[in-house]
Amino acid sequence: MSTYTSINLIARPKPGPITSELFEVVEKEIPTAGPGQILVKQTHMSLDPAMIGWMSPDPESYIPPVALGEVMRASGLGTVVESNHPDFAVGDMVRGMTGMTEYILTDGQGLNTVPAGLDAETVLAVFALPGLTATQGLYGFGDPKAGETLVVSGAAGSVGSIVGQLAKADGLNVIGVAGDDEKCNWIVDTLGFDGAINYKTDDIPAKLDELAPKGVDVYFENTGGPIQKHVFDRMNAHGRIVVCGMIADYTSAEPSPGPNWIPLIKKRITVRGFAMPDHYGDIPALLEKLTPYVMGGKIKFRTHVLEGLESAIDGLNLFFTGGNRGKLIVKL
Amino acid sequence: MSTYTSINLIARPKPGPITSELFEVVEKEIPTAGPGQILVKQTHMSLDPAMIGWMSPDPESYIPPVALGEVMRASGLGTVVESNHPDFAVGDMVRGMTGMTEYILTDGQGLNTVPAGLDAETVLAVFALPGLTATQGLYGFGDPKAGETLVVSGAAGSVGSIVGQLAKADGLNVIGVAGDDEKCNWIVDTLGFDGAINYKTDDIPAKLDELAPKGVDVYFENTGGPIQKHVFDRMNAHGRIVVCGMIADYTSAEPSPGPNWIPLIKKRITVRGFAMPDHYGDIPALLEKLTPYVMGGKIKFRTHVLEGLESAIDGLNLFFTGGNRGKLIVKL
Repeated sequence: MSTYTSINLIARPKPGPITSELFEVVEKEIPTAGPGQILVKQTHMSLDPAMIGWMSPDPESYIPPVALGEVMRASGLGTVVESNHPDFAVGDMVRGMTGMTEYILTDGQGLNTVPAGLDAETVLAVFALPGLTATQGLYGFGDPKAGETLVVSGAAGSVGSIVGQLAKADGLNVIGVAGDDEKCNWIVDTLGFDGAINYKTDDIPAKLDELAPKGVDVYFENTGGPIQKHVFDRMNAHGRIVVCGMIADYTSAEPSPGPNWIPLIKKRITVRGFAMPDHYGDIPALLEKLTPYVMGGKIKFRTHVLEGLESAIDGLNLFFTGGNRGKLIVKL
Repeated sequence: MSTYTSINLIARPKPGPITSELFEVVEKEIPTAGPGQILVKQTHMSLDPAMIGWMSPDPESYIPPVALGEVMRASGLGTVVESNHPDFAVGDMVRGMTGMTEYILTDGQGLNTVPAGLDAETVLAVFALPGLTATQGLYGFGDPKAGETLVVSGAAGSVGSIVGQLAKADGLNVIGVAGDDEKCNWIVDTLGFDGAINYKTDDIPAKLDELAPKGVDVYFENTGGPIQKHVFDRMNAHGRIVVCGMIADYTSAEPSPGPNWIPLIKKRITVRGFAMPDHYGDIPALLEKLTPYVMGGKIKFRTHVLEGLESAIDGLNLFFTGGNRGKLIVKL
């Protein structure tokens, strides 16, 4: 009898790092596909900052939290190893919300076959949540125009790096904010951003004045934290702020206050929060928008690969420490 | 030789009340209309919260501040007493940015003739900045839908009272926030709001829970202050916040912080600041939207009339104290 491993969420996170006490690692017997079912062996699992939110008990969130005792939610990619389903053949590469588990027995709902010619890392780093989120946020709400200035926080992250490259390809002045010099160098030297700010060591106001002398038109917010106020203070009239992530505040006991709203009136600014589940119906259109940039070589990425399912638990803490170098993927 | 009075702005406001030291009251000789000119005798001048902003030196505001030494900016209504202009006849009632002055010598640019049948108070209280602002903010950005809940602060004010009545006519559950019981009674008993909160004496969270049991879909913000956080905390998914005024913070030395942005993501909220000068081109469409509500008897108003030009100076402080009862108008 062969077994496989799954990870269940069994407690809610508290302020501070994610610990193994929140999870239960379970061994189960590998099942067999029944009528209409497929069995998928997950090969690559994505780690995303949104997962921190899914673990939290906030009933108002855009997606129900993971129930305690259930397999922790995650997106991933795997190979069909058994199929009694007409739409899937053994050997197909499929993607979807796989969860933190080595095997998935499913009727196939919510899983999509990956087109031939795409490797797993490109799928998870670009044509999945990161690229879709970047495309929806930037074009759905950011309204970028050539010649404008865009600031993106979490700029070396999976979403931020794509946002910046899309905007750069569109002719904007693009400034990225990241947490160490290696990331700052990467987004400028490799991704082609116009400038970078190390929010931990740079004089943020001085650096913003230097890199954004004409002010900021689009602020793509992935992190929260100390950068927010300084960018907010430099928004131009009719500026657009797209709020995609606030990782700096997700597990703090007392979230830091935001800016006073008077400048929203004086400068007629729009601040818009969004989350991808609202836009799943638009995925075909988003892919249509994104694909030419990728095919045109405008979107570079790098992956930070962890090995083995259980590495995912501590891996989530990399979103807090900023220790990852590229899209976080767990190889199974 | 006859003279008339004008009021020039000669200093910038500091935190605290508006004082007479900011202004210079000057006497001038009444001029005569030259070729192409008209002479207008102002009869009713409007006092609006926006004037506080126009006095401030913020170069980033949506409209240049009033230059020191110039007539203080104001909108108003008057009678043409001399005309050498084909579009204006003696006796016409005209409206526009008249300024704090008893007489205006002008080529007529920016002035519009008021249609017969409208009295001066209706023009200034409804078919001027208050009504246009309410209509633009509510329908341009608030996207109100029957059955939803709307909270409006400054609900007994010139803009807020119209916002609430429009929303009520559209079938929303309308809650107004005001600063004393008389205003709260007026918006419920006379204007037909579903509920009112006295932000100075009520237990705001308890009252909001009672009046908005299903949460808040549209928040029309006219004031800032302690109410903001509590309404923000109760916003529903896909809520819209329209930021029109922040009078509570306009002259404070240190504006109070706003809410953290995490809920903007979790609930996909849009916060939009606006100012009417961006929408002057839309005034015909706004009037077309607003007029049927007025003609249908859906929009009630009251005026708080001050007598004499110089009453305007201290009159501006009524926006801070909330001492006015209805649209502030200075009768000349």
